[in-house]
Amino acid sequence: MIDVRTNPDRYHHWTLKLGEQIAELVLDVDEHETVGAGYQLKMNSYDLGVDIELADALERLRLSYPQITTVLVRSAKERVFCAGANIGMLAGATHQHKVNFCKFTNETRLFMEDTPAHFIAVIEGTAAGGGYELALSCDTIVLVDDGSASVSLPEVALLAVLPGTGGLTRLTDKRNLRRDRADYFCTLEEGIKGQRALAWRLVDHLVPRSGLSELLDELVISHQRTGPPPGPGITLNEIPRELTLNSVSYSHIQANIDRSNGVVTIEISGPTEAPSSSGELLSEGDNSWLIATARELNDLICHLRFNESTLGTLLVKSRGDLAIAKRYTELLERERGEWIVDEGLALWRRTLARLDLTSRSIMAAVDSSSCFVGPLAELVFASDRSFFLDDAQAGLVVTRLNLEAFPMMNGLSRLATRFWGHPDELARLESIIDHPLDAATAQEFGLVTFTPDTFDWEDELRLALDGRNAFSPDALTAMEANLRFAGPESMATKIFGRLSAWQNWVFNRPNAVGPEGALQRYGTGLATNFQSERI
Amino acid sequence: MIDVRTNPDRYHHWTLKLGEQIAELVLDVDEHETVGAGYQLKMNSYDLGVDIELADALERLRLSYPQITTVLVRSAKERVFCAGANIGMLAGATHQHKVNFCKFTNETRLFMEDTPAHFIAVIEGTAAGGGYELALSCDTIVLVDDGSASVSLPEVALLAVLPGTGGLTRLTDKRNLRRDRADYFCTLEEGIKGQRALAWRLVDHLVPRSGLSELLDELVISHQRTGPPPGPGITLNEIPRELTLNSVSYSHIQANIDRSNGVVTIEISGPTEAPSSSGELLSEGDNSWLIATARELNDLICHLRFNESTLGTLLVKSRGDLAIAKRYTELLERERGEWIVDEGLALWRRTLARLDLTSRSIMAAVDSSSCFVGPLAELVFASDRSFFLDDAQAGLVVTRLNLEAFPMMNGLSRLATRFWGHPDELARLESIIDHPLDAATAQEFGLVTFTPDTFDWEDELRLALDGRNAFSPDALTAMEANLRFAGPESMATKIFGRLSAWQNWVFNRPNAVGPEGALQRYGTGLATNFQSERI
Repeated sequence: MIDVRTNPDRYHHWTLKLGEQIAELVLDVDEHETVGAGYQLKMNSYDLGVDIELADALERLRLSYPQITTVLVRSAKERVFCAGANIGMLAGATHQHKVNFCKFTNETRLFMEDTPAHFIAVIEGTAAGGGYELALSCDTIVLVDDGSASVSLPEVALLAVLPGTGGLTRLTDKRNLRRDRADYFCTLEEGIKGQRALAWRLVDHLVPRSGLSELLDELVISHQRTGPPPGPGITLNEIPRELTLNSVSYSHIQANIDRSNGVVTIEISGPTEAPSSSGELLSEGDNSWLIATARELNDLICHLRFNESTLGTLLVKSRGDLAIAKRYTELLERERGEWIVDEGLALWRRTLARLDLTSRSIMAAVDSSSCFVGPLAELVFASDRSFFLDDAQAGLVVTRLNLEAFPMMNGLSRLATRFWGHPDELARLESIIDHPLDAATAQEFGLVTFTPDTFDWEDELRLALDGRNAFSPDALTAMEANLRFAGPESMATKIFGRLSAWQNWVFNRPNAVGPEGALQRYGTGLATNFQSERI
Repeated sequence: MIDVRTNPDRYHHWTLKLGEQIAELVLDVDEHETVGAGYQLKMNSYDLGVDIELADALERLRLSYPQITTVLVRSAKERVFCAGANIGMLAGATHQHKVNFCKFTNETRLFMEDTPAHFIAVIEGTAAGGGYELALSCDTIVLVDDGSASVSLPEVALLAVLPGTGGLTRLTDKRNLRRDRADYFCTLEEGIKGQRALAWRLVDHLVPRSGLSELLDELVISHQRTGPPPGPGITLNEIPRELTLNSVSYSHIQANIDRSNGVVTIEISGPTEAPSSSGELLSEGDNSWLIATARELNDLICHLRFNESTLGTLLVKSRGDLAIAKRYTELLERERGEWIVDEGLALWRRTLARLDLTSRSIMAAVDSSSCFVGPLAELVFASDRSFFLDDAQAGLVVTRLNLEAFPMMNGLSRLATRFWGHPDELARLESIIDHPLDAATAQEFGLVTFTPDTFDWEDELRLALDGRNAFSPDALTAMEANLRFAGPESMATKIFGRLSAWQNWVFNRPNAVGPEGALQRYGTGLATNFQSERI
């Protein structure tokens, strides 16, 4: 069982050191603390457990320590920054685990880039593969010029796979490395060091060891805050969760599992009262509905991804008082700009983005007990199909937050993506902003898929769920990965939609994973035996 | 051996009927004329042979019949428009053939969209899977409302694969179907007909059979040309080609094969004289260097894709008189706007786009005998790596054509893609436009990767070629598919980079291709047996 809940006191691999405006994230992987058996995490290589701690630290930097302006990412090991994903782990993992491991690490890298603090990778040694990709996700890369420190992406040359954490895309689209140089660099086992690494934009600063401290001081100063700091941050306590064979229960979320149909029914409770100010929201700490529900939903998605791979459909419902949920949303809209509100919304934004990338079919059911308002309304727009019971009761409200606060990874709101190519249909939503909507109105404005009446409701939902369960899970995953992202692509969607799709393909090919493939033969002394056909 | 050379007199499946401004492309598949064994092309289903004829017809519409303004795409079969890719063919094909078949058909659909004439799909019957995707590639879709005519994408439901010819992307990004409706539509075996097809934008016109002729007349009139027609077109004769075991010879291109290293050396001859006007160019017909060389290169790429899958690297060279090639390019620049010049450049644009999508490593070698000017210079910029012999001789010229005439499928020129994120580096090319460049200058301006001197030249090329041949072909394919497309994505790059990558993955999964998978079991009466894990 993989549990993504952790905290700094329990970290095995990372240390989060906090100063007044500066934090350090120090990687010192404990090679024996693995999430799986049969491999050791030598050379600061990582498995999912290492990344779970990093993801946790990033959440805490935002919500608990918002005063931090600069984060130094560094290694406590001699002569090695990070050796990337552990090869023994990859060689022994199932295809399902490899793909989901890469997806989670990619999300963590993107969430790092999304964090307001400035991240500086301090490379004193070798940064190989996922190790260099970790640095690529930082805002600034410092390479200590000691004659041996280097950066490399040796995956193609050594392992017959791709750099799996966005490396290729960040080379071309973030660091704007010329494609021919990127091609050369990505086929070098030993990587590139020194002046060429700087000249080719693989790093931002090259500094002798003696000058490192001064350079870091300068970089930190250039990112110091001049105004008053946000905060104080809130403490993130362990998310209370109860697991049974067929249920996952949180404070605000109840998930019930129907294994015969592969369905998880996720019922989310709306807020029971609305705080009167952002100060009151802040004082609720991690107990506020805004923060707690997002954390619970995030935990549930991760739990289902890693531990419940055969549950193919998520049926999302909400329960609560629509008027209270609407007042709660009004407070959030009114107090945007206050750090706790902005961070609460950003937490929902990240959680919803993770849902978009989750390879499960998502269905939303709206009825008269629903309170799909504000962040919860996004669940309807994030679903592959939605059903709204046509009994003239309201259960859905579109607010300005839905147009502004939760952009998908393609940079557009879910509503703008929904109406891509038809700006008139997006614009006419203005006329129903903040109005509680019944099924007929929601249908008229294109907000839901189907509106069965009371007589058909149960049958129609059941047919949709049964039908989904009869299809190939692979075909559904691939179809959803395409249909969910209309319109423009961003670096993030290129990473998941193009790079990861190609990586998933490579992860199925004998040249990588077959008995004579590179992942199996790495380190054995045996030569790989590649099929020479180009596909 | 698959040969993409054909002509309308030899078509088995399509008829190209020509009027004054209207053409009809009529599909009447001969079920016994297949490129492989073991299947029959019933119900206007297709294999590569059917698509080769369509691609040929599209080339002729542009170059031989430029006066055509409207093309009706229709079926000669009763009650069926087209049933899509043949399932027996897919079930029996190798992974390599399936992927390359889909790539070619996708290129053909995109080239159809790129053709100036207005394409109208006239659906009188069922348009299923690739059949509906063929209609989606037309500009207008007319559905005859006879109570049974329908459109469908039943791949997920019936075959556990994706629509392979851009269907999902065109639904969301071209026809702007809402994602939830697209999700529903793509899981329906029987598809959608009548008013719902129209209301959901799956078709543009719904018409009773009795009104079809009048509607088509109206549509044709609305796309009629008012000014003088371009042309007269030129005759496209069979491309002369000589194959031996280790060579492919054309009039302007010589390809020599080194099987031990998997290398094809492609030497392209530049023009031997420059026409004085576009009229003279036109009078040369398909013998002009501009048209002939592009057709030969296109044929060679297709030949290598379909018949030489183990040759992983293309080494591109040019030979000729740089001054003449420069004068030729100047003529093209001067006479842009003349149809034969524009169509010649467009032919190069499509051929170069096909090269970008070819899963072979591309290396360019520039030396003092080279004449990389105009269209030929694009081959240097399309390469994964380029080498320029540093002997102070010129072999490369950047002209305005390279900035304007050959956009990649991402909408940018290869030079703009090369310098993506660094507009200053793109802008400073202005200072060397039309200047013959030696290796040092080309290197300074970032136009080539390496500039070995005479002493190192042979060794450095050999090392690069040998090294390439040692890597996994799959890893190289996936790496190149990422590094070649920096910057924005278009509908076309989404089709190849996102949709096709996912399809390639699905084509490797047991749920589709395993002994109990849907492709093998379709039509057998046996139930599929899916692994239920979500990846």
